[in-house]
Parts: sequence; structure tokens; C-alpha cells
Amino acid sequence: MSEHVYKSVELTGSSKVGSDDAIKCAIERASKTIRDIRWFHVTEIRGHVDEGKVAYWQVTLKIGFTLEG
Amino acid sequence: MSEHVYKSVELTGSSKVGSDDAIKCAIERASKTIRDIRWFHVTEIRGHVDEGKVAYWQVTLKIGFTLEG
Amino acid sequence: MSEHVYKSVELTGSSKVGSDDAIKCAIERASKTIRDIRWFHVTEIRGHVDEGKVAYWQVTLKIGFTLEG
Amino acid sequence: MSEHVYKSVELTGSSKVGSDDAIKCAIERASKTIRDIRWFHVTEIRGHVDEGKVAYWQVTLKIGFTLEG
Amino acid sequence: MSEHVYKSVELTGSSKVGSDDAIKCAIERASKTIRDIRWFHVTEIRGHVDEGKVAYWQVTLKIGFTLEG
Amino acid sequence: MSEHVYKSVELTGSSKVGSDDAIKCAIERASKTIRDIRWFHVTEIRGHVDEGKVAYWQVTLKIGFTLEG
Amino acid sequence: MSEHVYKSVELTGSSKVGSDDAIKCAIERASKTIRDIRWFHVTEIRGHVDEGKVAYWQVTLKIGFTLEG
Amino acid sequence: MSEHVYKSVELTGSSKVGSDDAIKCAIERASKTIRDIRWFHVTEIRGHVDEGKVAYWQVTLKIGFTLEG
Amino acid sequence: MSEHVYKSVELTGSSKVGSDDAIKCAIERASKTIRDIRWFHVTEIRGHVDEGKVAYWQVTLKIGFTLEG
Amino acid sequence: MSEHVYKSVELTGSSKVGSDDAIKCAIERASKTIRDIRWFHVTEIRGHVDEGKVAYWQVTLKIGFTLEG
Amino acid sequence: MSEHVYKSVELTGSSKVGSDDAIKCAIERASKTIRDIRWFHVTEIRGHVDEGKVAYWQVTLKIGFTLEG
Amino acid sequence: MSEHVYKSVELTGSSKVGSDDAIKCAIERASKTIRDIRWFHVTEIRGHVDEGKVAYWQVTLKIGFTLEG
Repeated sequence: MSEHVYKSVELTGSSKVGSDDAIKCAIERASKTIRDIRWFHVTEIRGHVDEGKVAYWQVTLKIGFTLEG
Repeated sequence: MSEHVYKSVELTGSSKVGSDDAIKCAIERASKTIRDIRWFHVTEIRGHVDEGKVAYWQVTLKIGFTLEG
Repeated sequence: MSEHVYKSVELTGSSKVGSDDAIKCAIERASKTIRDIRWFHVTEIRGHVDEGKVAYWQVTLKIGFTLEG
Repeated sequence: MSEHVYKSVELTGSSKVGSDDAIKCAIERASKTIRDIRWFHVTEIRGHVDEGKVAYWQVTLKIGFTLEG
Repeated sequence: MSEHVYKSVELTGSSKVGSDDAIKCAIERASKTIRDIRWFHVTEIRGHVDEGKVAYWQVTLKIGFTLEG
Repeated sequence: MSEHVYKSVELTGSSKVGSDDAIKCAIERASKTIRDIRWFHVTEIRGHVDEGKVAYWQVTLKIGFTLEG
Repeated sequence: MSEHVYKSVELTGSSKVGSDDAIKCAIERASKTIRDIRWFHVTEIRGHVDEGKVAYWQVTLKIGFTLEG
Repeated sequence: MSEHVYKSVELTGSSKVGSDDAIKCAIERASKTIRDIRWFHVTEIRGHVDEGKVAYWQVTLKIGFTLEG
Repeated sequence: MSEHVYKSVELTGSSKVGSDDAIKCAIERASKTIRDIRWFHVTEIRGHVDEGKVAYWQVTLKIGFTLEG
Repeated sequence: MSEHVYKSVELTGSSKVGSDDAIKCAIERASKTIRDIRWFHVTEIRGHVDEGKVAYWQVTLKIGFTLEG
Repeated sequence: MSEHVYKSVELTGSSKVGSDDAIKCAIERASKTIRDIRWFHVTEIRGHVDEGKVAYWQVTLKIGFTLEG
Repeated sequence: MSEHVYKSVELTGSSKVGSDDAIKCAIERASKTIRDIRWFHVTEIRGHVDEGKVAYWQVTLKIGFTLEG
């Protein structure tokens, strides 16, 4: 943890399974294009309802990563 | 998604199982009397503790639905 | 629920399993030294990411208990 | 405190007497039509001023009650 | 402005025209079923985008009205 | 309530008696120099403690008044 | 933009026309007595309702200006 | 007021009498074990309702005191 | 609305015309480089004042879009 | 600390030197016209950037002072 | 960073020198009695003013540390 | 200041020296890849502690810049 600079971006993951799974989906998708993700921070938990049941969980999170160079 | 008007109400679901389950309980109970629920938004996650363990999860959420007519 | 005074302290539980489990860890650790824990209230959900996957969930919560005497 | 679902509604009580009395007014009025009110939570304390004195206290509160069935 | 009790409900109006129009829509729809609406308070301004243009404005507001009796 | 413009200023009243009295003190002091005060809105409730008892209540409030002309 | 000191005051403009017009009203009224207003920042959008329609928009804003000398 | 360090703890006082009394209860209970309490700051005003009346006021406050040595 | 991941970015649009127009400007500029914008969410309404009149409206908004692949 | 009434005003100090210096600038400028300033409270830390370096620090603070009489 | 539990406490450091120094004072005082402090998080920057100059900086921070065992 | 559109990104700078220096680090690193940075806005001040002393200051800020074209 030296004098690095970190950037954070805001993503929303969605999942039929649950709120933790929506977070995992967002992290794993982000990892395809962002190296060195270090942490996440949940900013909102929402969801869609269909026919009286939770259809999708939608969790918004900030993802922080090291800016290289 | 046309020029509808939506209403939201605030509910708290409780569950012995976990936070996602408390949300499902609230949605399913609300669906008995409210048609056309469209979304939910978590505003608070609390719980009761008994003898050093989580006894109940209590999740407060806003539930949005279409106002007909 | 008489004219008691309650105190709350802020803890952060961490878990490889999920956000609910991080809460349980914090409550159970706190119960070793605090008697009469009554409720908890989540104030932050974060986590550490390693190699593109969630490595740890970290949930910060306030824990309330009765002050005796 | 079992697996119930609670609903909360937002009311504003007003009183010439003081802020606590404005809360009592709101609770007592709500009790005419809502059974099983369990708790309240103050969200705003305001008031009207007339000729340099407080004319009315207005306290907004959320009132929580058990949804039956 | 005597010792009345007021209730507020949360609505979201939508409009293709603009944010003020979304508010008007919500107020006018609410007036069909609620008498004595006194004030509104905007809590969120959102919208949907379609093909790179604003398709709908969605304004969430609290609407306050006098509880009779 | 026509197309007026209102201004608000922030004051803190203090009282040995209680929180409502601190509000009254602030309103009455302000009325010496501000005409047409219309409303107040509490933003903070604090106090000083001396020898284990509340010595002063300090309530911060915004006071709104009509700008003439 | 040198080493100046700025002051901000909080005003509420009202208008029968709309929210932007309420802002203009507040700015223009303030300009009668405050020189060198530089910016505004909206803190609240409210309104009064009469007979089921918006009667007045009320927008609260902070207005910043340069302190001379 | 020299280069001291202060600590604050969060307590909730409850009272059948009113919100100010709930604050006094919390301060007086805290004074049994904490010396040199200097200030308090209210963070939440809640209460329990029983049979349509306020049964208990519950006020949460931060209490600040000087850390000796 | 399947198991997609969404990203949001924060933009500020400015306009001489009004607050809704500032939003449209930001959306239309963003659409030149971002495909599949789905929603926006206003986080701040500000403006610049020149010679006692609103010179520019500046609206900050989060814009959400689907992350492909 | 008797039954005084305090007023607070919001200022923004700017400095090329740093954030603490921007606070000092605001306090010293305010002291030219306000007697008996007692405390300040930072509400925002911003700054202007020019050619990739911090050109000005801008710190907004509330300044509290005793209202005489 | 394994499945530990962390606790955080809130302290206020004061300093005649500046805001960073007030933080250092709080951390160093806390380290006399708390082992394994890991992080801090600033929650408030205030100060006292005397004769028109900053007399003391007061910075409130949460300090997090590992709960052993 | 014409009808431009601005974008803001969130960065965290870290420094062994102090909080202002952490801000400068973030701005200077960002300037390597972003042209026309105009302003910054601090959203969080944190730090790491090692052996009872501040090891790193970490300041999170939003950086705003002009979107060309």
C-alpha cells in the first residue's frame, strides 16, 4: 500500500439468485477489462418484481482499482 | 413504460433465514393486496439478536407499483 | 422494554462466504465480551477483491445492548 | 417478534404546545384507523411562526405497524 | 393551519415533456383519489433514455394532505 | 402565499430548560431584528453537560422570512 | 478566480410558472441588494397544491457571491 | 480547550415522560461510569407505541468526553 | 432486463435555456460515444449567474448503460 | 456559555497554499465585519485545477458567532 | 486480511497547528491504549476561533482496529 | 464557460506527507491521461495506521473535466 492512485467506477450487477450473487456478477464482468481490482463498496440494493416475486436483484457498487504508472 | 404514475410504500420484512429472504417475505406479503408491483429499493438492514446469535433479519424496503386509471 | 439505557458499538465482520455470514461473525465475536446484545443495524457493505473474485465480504454494523445498572 | 411484515406511513402532527405533543397528536390520530402501531421515528421538526413567536410545532414521523394476515 | 394531522405519500410521475410536467401528472393523478392535497416535495429526478434521447422524465415526490376527522 | 421570495438564516438557541425552549429563545431573539418570520426547521439538537447533568440545550434551526420589495 | 472569499445565502423563490422560473425569481430579487452573485445551487424543490393542481413552485437555493475588500 | 483528545460513545436513553427526559436519562446513566462528559449530540428520535399511545421515547445521542492522559 | 451488468458515469450538462435542456445536452453528448444508455439520475442542479441573471444552468447526472459482453 | 443565541453564516475561502490556509483566509476576512466568531465547521473541500496542478483550494465552512443583545 | 472482526471508535483530536496534526494527535493518543489500529476515517472538521483567528483545529475521526481472539 | 459537457471521475490519492499532498498526487497522476481537468471535490478522507502512527493519507476526490467535441 504505497503512494499509488486508485480509481473507482460504479457498476450495477443483476442476478436472479440473490444480492451477493449480483455483486459477484458485477465483479467478474468488470475483471474482464479492469486489472487489479482491489475493493468494492455497495451503494444501492434494488430489484425488479414480476408476478409478485423478486425477478432480479440489482446491486450497485463502486469498484476500486490501482491506476498503473 | 408510458406516462404512468407509480406509488411506493415502505415495508419491513423479517426472516430467520437471511436478508434476501426478509426481502422476499415483504414482497410476497405485499403482493396479496397490491397488484402490479414493479420494483423494490432497500433502505435499511437491521436485525434482532438473541443469546448472542442473529434471531431475525429485518429489511426495510420501498415497493413501487403502477397506479391504475 | 422499560426505562433502560442502551449503548451501541460499531464493528466490521468479514467472511469469505457472504454478507449475511459477515454479520453473523461480527455478532458472535461481540457476544464473547458483550452480554445482552439486542439489535444490529448495517451501516456499510464492502469487500476485498483478489484475482477478479470477491475474496472477503466486510459488513460494518452497529450493535446495541442494554447498559446494566 | 416473529416473521411478520410491517408497514410504515409518514404523518405530520401539529401542536401549539410543543414538539412532543405534536408527536402524540399524530400517533393518537393515526390510532383511530390503524391497529397495532408499534413504533415511530421522527424525520423532521419544523414549525410556523406568527408575530415573532412559535405558533405551531410540526413534527413529521414514520409510524410502523404490523400487517396482518 | 390549526392542530391538524397531515399524511404524505410517495408518487412518481412520468412525462415525455419534462420534469415539471412529470410533477403535474403525479399531482393530477393523485387528486382523483386524495382530497385536500396541500404540498409536494421532490425527492428524486430520473429518466429513461432511448436511442440517445430522453424518452421519459420520472420525478418522485412526496405529496402531503390533511387527514380529516 | 404569492410569488414572494423567502430568505433563511441559521441560528442556534440555547436554554437551561429544554429543547423546545431553546427553539423559542432563538425565534424570539431573531424577531427583534427580522420582521415576517414564517417558519423554522430544526437541523441539529446538541447540548453541554456539566457534572453529569445537561447544563444547556442547544438547538440549531433555519428561520425563514419574507424578503420585502 | 483569485484568493477571494465568497459568501452564500439561502433563498426560496416561488413561481406559478415552473421550477426554473422560481429560480430566476430568487436570483433576480437577490440581485437588487447583492452585487457580484456568481453561482447558485438548488437544495430543495417543493410546491403548494390547490384544488388538485400545482399552485406554486418553491425552489430553495444557495446563492454565492464575492465578499469585497 | 487545549490540545486534548475527546472520545464519543453512542447511547440510547428511554423515558415514559418525553424526549428531553430520555436524553437526561442517558446522560445521567453514562455519568456513573464516564467522567468529564462535555457535550451530547442527538442522532435519532424514536419511540414505542402501545394501545395507540406513546409508551416510551427513545433518543439516541453521541456523548463526548475528554480522554485523560 | 436479464443478468446484465450496467455501468454509470457522471456528467454535467450546461445550457442557457433551462435545467431540462442541460440534461438533454448531457445525454445527447454522451450518446456520441456510449451506446445503449438506459437511464439517468440527477445528482445536482447548479448554475452560473452573470449581471444578476441566470447565465447557465448546470445539471449533474449519472448516466447508466449496459456493459456488453 | 449562557442562554445566548448564535448565528452561523456560510463562507468559502480560497488559497493557493492549501486547505488549512483557505480556512484561515475565510476566518480572517470574516473577522473584519463579524465580532465574536466562536467556531467553524467545514462543509465542503473543493478546488480549481489549471494545467494539471491544483491552482486554488476552496473550502466552504460555516462560521458561528454570538448574537449580541 | 482474514476472517477477523474489527471495531471502530470515534475520537476528536485538537491541534493549534492544523487539521492533519489534529488527526495525528488523535491517532497517537489512541495508540497508548489500543493495539493494532489499522485505519482512520474523517467524519468532521471543525475548529475554535479566538480574536478572529483559528485557535484550535478539531477533527473527528473513526479509528478501526482488529479485535483479538 | 459555454454550453459544454463535463465528466467527472472518482480517484483516491495516497501520500505519506498529508491530506493536501494526497490530493495533489491524485490530480497530477490524472493529468497524465486526462486533458482539461477543471476542478476537484473531496468526498472522503481516510488513512492507514501502522505502529500507532499515520502511515498513509488517502483522499478520495471527484475530478471534473471538459468533454471535447
